[in-house]
Amino acid sequence: MRSITVALGERSYPIYIGSGLLQNTGERCIEAGFPQRSPLLLVSDSEVAPLYLDKVAASLRGSGYTVVSHIIQAGEASKSLAVYEEVITTAIQGGLDRSSAVLALGGGVVGDLAGFVAASYMRGIGFMQIPTTILAHDSSVGGKVAVNHPLAKNMLGAFYQPSMVLYDLDTLATLPPRQVASGLAEVVKHGLILDKEFAYWCREHAGELLALDPEALGYALERGCAIKADVVCNDETEQGQRAILNLGHTIGHAIEAVGGYGVFLHGEAIAIGMAGAALLAAKLGRDRAIYEDTVSMLTALSLPVRLPAQYDEDELMEAMMHDKKFKEGRMTFIVPDSIGAVSIVGDVQASDVRGVIAQLKKEESPW
Amino acid sequence: MRSITVALGERSYPIYIGSGLLQNTGERCIEAGFPQRSPLLLVSDSEVAPLYLDKVAASLRGSGYTVVSHIIQAGEASKSLAVYEEVITTAIQGGLDRSSAVLALGGGVVGDLAGFVAASYMRGIGFMQIPTTILAHDSSVGGKVAVNHPLAKNMLGAFYQPSMVLYDLDTLATLPPRQVASGLAEVVKHGLILDKEFAYWCREHAGELLALDPEALGYALERGCAIKADVVCNDETEQGQRAILNLGHTIGHAIEAVGGYGVFLHGEAIAIGMAGAALLAAKLGRDRAIYEDTVSMLTALSLPVRLPAQYDEDELMEAMMHDKKFKEGRMTFIVPDSIGAVSIVGDVQASDVRGVIAQLKKEESPW
Ligand SMILES: NC(=O)c1ccc[n+]([C@@H]2O[C@H](COP(=O)([O-])OP(=O)(O)OC[C@H]3O[C@@H](n4cnc5c(N)ncnc54)[C@H](O)[C@@H]3O)[C@@H](O)[C@H]2O)c1
Ligand SMILES: NC(=O)c1ccc[n+]([C@@H]2O[C@H](COP(=O)([O-])OP(=O)(O)OC[C@H]3O[C@@H](n4cnc5c(N)ncnc54)[C@H](O)[C@@H]3O)[C@@H](O)[C@H]2O)c1
Ligand SMILES: [Zn+2]
Ligand SMILES: [Zn+2]
Repeated sequence: MRSITVALGERSYPIYIGSGLLQNTGERCIEAGFPQRSPLLLVSDSEVAPLYLDKVAASLRGSGYTVVSHIIQAGEASKSLAVYEEVITTAIQGGLDRSSAVLALGGGVVGDLAGFVAASYMRGIGFMQIPTTILAHDSSVGGKVAVNHPLAKNMLGAFYQPSMVLYDLDTLATLPPRQVASGLAEVVKHGLILDKEFAYWCREHAGELLALDPEALGYALERGCAIKADVVCNDETEQGQRAILNLGHTIGHAIEAVGGYGVFLHGEAIAIGMAGAALLAAKLGRDRAIYEDTVSMLTALSLPVRLPAQYDEDELMEAMMHDKKFKEGRMTFIVPDSIGAVSIVGDVQASDVRGVIAQLKKEESPW
Repeated sequence: MRSITVALGERSYPIYIGSGLLQNTGERCIEAGFPQRSPLLLVSDSEVAPLYLDKVAASLRGSGYTVVSHIIQAGEASKSLAVYEEVITTAIQGGLDRSSAVLALGGGVVGDLAGFVAASYMRGIGFMQIPTTILAHDSSVGGKVAVNHPLAKNMLGAFYQPSMVLYDLDTLATLPPRQVASGLAEVVKHGLILDKEFAYWCREHAGELLALDPEALGYALERGCAIKADVVCNDETEQGQRAILNLGHTIGHAIEAVGGYGVFLHGEAIAIGMAGAALLAAKLGRDRAIYEDTVSMLTALSLPVRLPAQYDEDELMEAMMHDKKFKEGRMTFIVPDSIGAVSIVGDVQASDVRGVIAQLKKEESPW
């Protein structure tokens, strides 16, 4: 088993990565300090629950916990205020008190939603992440929790750290291949922003990663989590440097918003966004090889790097205006300086972004 | 002008108390560090807005701010997730960004709701409290923000400190007399828990306070805020000692939940609750004079100390079970040891509480 500590002072917590972890969830909850007298709320979704919920619940009950569970419909649409309210109702009816904890068993959707429940229920109770997607290596580190508003993604939320992250690699075996690739987009992103060697390692081991080879995957998730944890520890509430994690996300979020959530998966959308950021880098005078290497890495991981022609430039630009990276009138972009290094550029011109979008549409998407 | 600092490290903020403060709100926002390029959201209610919103908005615009306003229906029913979502929609449509701030112009309802908006919009933006009720001297200090769930009050929220509190005593002139008395219940509560002299001072100056004498009122609000700030600074997230602020609130919240929010005002309900806590103290062996003095103080301030006969004991007990003061199976009560001193008693028997409720109903309420 691999283990990383996210060092955030009194909010520090461990991430465990390995096989066969689910069946010890109960013991981990004791280790995390959740008292057995207070009910636990286990949140999962309609795809994940049939596969893994019983195993987790049995372990919890075996350790003396009362378990209340709430299963949401799988998919981004559940990251809404309406579903949030339903989960809260379950928590109240299940008798959750101030010593209770919420366990998020699932991908980033379950993690973000359940995290906002934990952050706001009685002004904050315990929280454990049990990620079951590769993408959730990202969402379960850093304490960002949120739900969407019909007008904008992740609009309502908090910074709220879990007490523990329990990452059982066995659960990834059932993940659909497109979800695997989508998750790897965030993995390689962590290389692209801060670790050149790791970025090239991902390209070299792309086959093993897509095939879920346990050794390669364990290493990749450990590196991905560790890089993210490093960034977060230096800037917990995103006052500055943490923004580098948003590489590819300004364009990516706009693609998700305009295309409709779920047409492109999150990782796919940000893969296109990372290709766009590399094109922007070239426009701003950086080496064009950054773009070529970025594209070769993403393509090796079966990720898209082109925007389908039907995406409207005006709609994409409009969506970016609503995005939280739009601050005090200027547009902020994360721009690669080389593979493994990025800058936060605060005064990017809208016309340059528009140009990048046009270029992303030039060739027909291979998807 | 009086001024108090709430000393919470990097989250420290000033409370200004005095006359004629509203017309300088714009300058105060600059002092608080809100940038003029980002729109401000001014939240108020249907009673307060016609009286004071224009003055505040004019001051803000005069200082170069763009102002978006949202007016909620006055009353506790607006502290709901549905209204929260409406305010968020206004914020998004008004173009609020991560450097924006929310200004709460009103009583505790506006403050709690707008505070939860500020705490969760884009995971937290700026926040200023501009209280217009006496009760809000309490709700605007301490960083508790929340909305209600149909099943329980203040169920969803956060700990989120404002950047500043601007308390213009002139606004209190239009407050209905029942609201004045209700607010004074929290003022005298601060004496009852920690400051014997201040508690007796409130009884002695009850007439001036009810008549809104500026000198007496300014002093009382300063003392009330200062005592609360002291408690909060030692226990920001209510891990322990902060619970003493809940004197009268376990029974008080149950009364509000069972009677329906607004039948008794919050301060009235906790006045009955404080009388109940003093009766419980006598049951647990404390001096019966505590009860008599408590009742004389509350009565001097025109506050109720009896429960109307129609309140059902079973319903009240049930409501307490749902309350957040119910932790790990035991019932926690704040019990006075003398006037100006209280204890947190963790293992109060339900039967004793039931007995207190019966006693509170013994004589017909004067209301
Ligand atoms: N909080 C953060 O810092 C952060 C960071 C990145 C992404 N996110 C959020 O994460 C979300 C995307 O996360 P995601 O990609 O994990 O999406 P997801 O949670 O929707 O999971 C993807 C799909 O895979 C299914 N699934 C999950 N685990 C499975 C398994 N083990 N076997 C079979 N099927 C499984 C799910 O039911 C779902 O249909 C987005 O909402 C995004 O905004 C948050
Ligand atoms: N956050 C906390 O720590 C905390 C502490 C105590 C109470 N509270 C909350 O505060 C709320 C009660 O606060 P409240 O008593 O101020 O209620 P409120 O905000 O509902 O105000 C009471 C009434 O007076 C009206 N009003 C307000 N100011 C006025 C003015 N200057 N002139 C004329 N009318 C005016 C309002 O429109 C309303 O109808 C409750 O929801 C309670 O839970 C919170
Ligand atoms: Zn992402
Ligand atoms: Zn109160």
